[in-house]
Amino acid sequence: MSTREIGVALLGYGTVGAAVDRVLHEQGDRIEGATGHRLRVVRALVRDLAKERDFTPEPGVLTADFARIRDDPSVRVVAEVMGGTEPACGYLLELLRAGKAVVTANKQLVARNGAELFAAASESGVQVRFEAAVCAAVPVIKVLRESLVASDVRRIQAIVNGTTNFVLEEMERGSTYAEAIAEAQLLGYAEADPADDVSGADAAAKMAILATTAFGSRVTVDDVDFDGIEGITKAHLDGARALGMAVRLVGTATRFDDAVAVRVRPSVLDREHPLAAVEGAFNAVVLHGDAIGEVTLQGPGAGGLETASAVVADLVAVAGTSGSGFLRNDPCRRRLALLAPDSFAARSYVHLELADQSGAAMQMTTALAANGVFVERQARLTDRDGADLHLLTRPVRERDLHAALARLEALPAVRGSVAALPVVGDVAVPAPETRAQAR
Amino acid sequence: MSTREIGVALLGYGTVGAAVDRVLHEQGDRIEGATGHRLRVVRALVRDLAKERDFTPEPGVLTADFARIRDDPSVRVVAEVMGGTEPACGYLLELLRAGKAVVTANKQLVARNGAELFAAASESGVQVRFEAAVCAAVPVIKVLRESLVASDVRRIQAIVNGTTNFVLEEMERGSTYAEAIAEAQLLGYAEADPADDVSGADAAAKMAILATTAFGSRVTVDDVDFDGIEGITKAHLDGARALGMAVRLVGTATRFDDAVAVRVRPSVLDREHPLAAVEGAFNAVVLHGDAIGEVTLQGPGAGGLETASAVVADLVAVAGTSGSGFLRNDPCRRRLALLAPDSFAARSYVHLELADQSGAAMQMTTALAANGVFVERQARLTDRDGADLHLLTRPVRERDLHAALARLEALPAVRGSVAALPVVGDVAVPAPETRAQAR
Repeated sequence: MSTREIGVALLGYGTVGAAVDRVLHEQGDRIEGATGHRLRVVRALVRDLAKERDFTPEPGVLTADFARIRDDPSVRVVAEVMGGTEPACGYLLELLRAGKAVVTANKQLVARNGAELFAAASESGVQVRFEAAVCAAVPVIKVLRESLVASDVRRIQAIVNGTTNFVLEEMERGSTYAEAIAEAQLLGYAEADPADDVSGADAAAKMAILATTAFGSRVTVDDVDFDGIEGITKAHLDGARALGMAVRLVGTATRFDDAVAVRVRPSVLDREHPLAAVEGAFNAVVLHGDAIGEVTLQGPGAGGLETASAVVADLVAVAGTSGSGFLRNDPCRRRLALLAPDSFAARSYVHLELADQSGAAMQMTTALAANGVFVERQARLTDRDGADLHLLTRPVRERDLHAALARLEALPAVRGSVAALPVVGDVAVPAPETRAQAR
Repeated sequence: MSTREIGVALLGYGTVGAAVDRVLHEQGDRIEGATGHRLRVVRALVRDLAKERDFTPEPGVLTADFARIRDDPSVRVVAEVMGGTEPACGYLLELLRAGKAVVTANKQLVARNGAELFAAASESGVQVRFEAAVCAAVPVIKVLRESLVASDVRRIQAIVNGTTNFVLEEMERGSTYAEAIAEAQLLGYAEADPADDVSGADAAAKMAILATTAFGSRVTVDDVDFDGIEGITKAHLDGARALGMAVRLVGTATRFDDAVAVRVRPSVLDREHPLAAVEGAFNAVVLHGDAIGEVTLQGPGAGGLETASAVVADLVAVAGTSGSGFLRNDPCRRRLALLAPDSFAARSYVHLELADQSGAAMQMTTALAANGVFVERQARLTDRDGADLHLLTRPVRERDLHAALARLEALPAVRGSVAALPVVGDVAVPAPETRAQAR
């Protein structure tokens, strides 16, 4: 092996793993031309050696024995593309302790076990990189860590789950929720079990990683206040449109001096908001900071080749830098408090069904005003059964809004439950008493 | 000086230079926390030592003597923020030969003298970085070189000049060209002499750098076929809008196997094109590649603090990597041919004024069809003097279009000259015979 050749091992050889091997083969000259390094996959861990693969690895590369990777001195860096928490986490810790650098595409692992992995890496003086864990081909981790190293990023607004974005767009076009999910599965945007996507859990893990990276303070997936799109109906989408807005699953991460809040919510966006134009299964991340104003990154947030592109960029970066690279492994360098979920005042979209419209307007206004909720504008859409009322409120604290919604639900004119979605982009400075203590 | 402290010198201490010093002071803890390095400005070259500054440097930092920087062993990296070609180029070559790494925000210098600078750097085993030369805070150079190292980027479409974007938007809102320029100057978006912006020369330099970086083949500013917005009138903007489109100054860089074409043109964009939504003085770059599909970066493309943010990111990258970094200095690694300007077939927007409308339609159709130009759709806007006709053609070669325009101008019904703007996004594979030879 020449001094320029870097031995790479893969944990997993599915769609992403095979694509990494293929890209390293097909773009080998290009990578060597740009960096002076030739990366070659020398080992890949699989369960079934006989299974048919998307790309045929070189003879002898596939192995079912993890120890053959851990103990192979020609392996300098390992890309984990197997997914799941275990055995992936255990494997990576062993590899780091054995002095091998690690690149991972595993968002749940980084969002849950990041601290442990970074510590093990730093102890061995090797790197952990995780670009592919967030937004696939959109290089938001490198941009946050390296390009914006001197920019004080204070707010992130993002669409980090393409499946839900596609589903909501399809529903806007007239599909039911079930039809939109089926279409997403057909196109390969959603898994057979789309639970992690539609529940917001996938987006929550990505937002935890983005917040940790941007703010330099640990945010785990358990710290993210998240909700999914299961409760979104055609009525919400139609109502939002009538108000000149769109419904999307949006992640927000906000820092106020010494406290942070990270949320994932089905939210309402003005049509002019940069995230409202994000189409299909694309992802987009809007970064707000002191020195940079607003920088937006957009692109495909999933896909085998797209994820492989990010894995390869990390492999090349590891190959080309020594020790722990020029950035410390752990982006976490301080401990900020977590803000309580209801710390913010935001405009809200409210949807309610009116069974009986006589005198309802006055009753509603009174019920809302009693909790300090005022309506900025509204749209009334009627069908054969009654009327759907869609309100856009002035900025209101979440706890005040929820108290007002309970009052509305108690009104005889209102049928069923009342739904509310936050409007993205309106964040007031929270009151100090609402700050929870950091762990 | 501790081992972690890196001595920085600045060439120039104007808006950008002072902002770099300020950011390194104010974000010093943050940078050290993330990277382990403390960067400190120890020297700054100025012409007038007594001049009032945006930020007060430490005593003894300012000097009017270049040799004091070149010969100072505590200076490890120099940021060139003085602008202009000379003496900047000569200074940088001397510094590189003296073994100092260089970071530059000078687009004309990189676009014209890049090869010389990269060669001098490589000879000394030090780095040249130039993120700030293109799109200020938008980290497109790092993304192209590092994140997309394995992605075969084949096309770039970009708005890289915020001044012209702002001016065209203001004109859409009703301002005259002169009023829009004056407004841009008032807001600090345009220089007292906006010639480089409105002529497309500024955008051409940036597109040359982007094309060189993306395609790995040298494209200098002289290789860019550029045109400015001086001839754009309210009639064009109104006509484009009537066709559901917008006029913007767009840079395109395209690679076909072994040949490239780089252009800057006032162009017509579908309202759905990602670049049509770029507001005010923002910049945006859309990268198309095999592995990544389409990745878009957007943000402020100018401004003292925004440019300083990019300079500091490069300084930190130099500080944290050794020798020439993990990427070779010169992004150029092969020699591709240049495509002749008229190699492409694209849809075109055509504007003409009709003095006399009797029989004009048939005459025009005949004149266009004789050169293989067919109209996809059209809009007719009339005022007291006659009619403005706005056509959208099917894809047509530029030379065929120009022949057709000459025929139109010869028609008695047509008043004055006929204008044509390309539609962004329609590129046909060029014929081989149109390929010019590379230098």
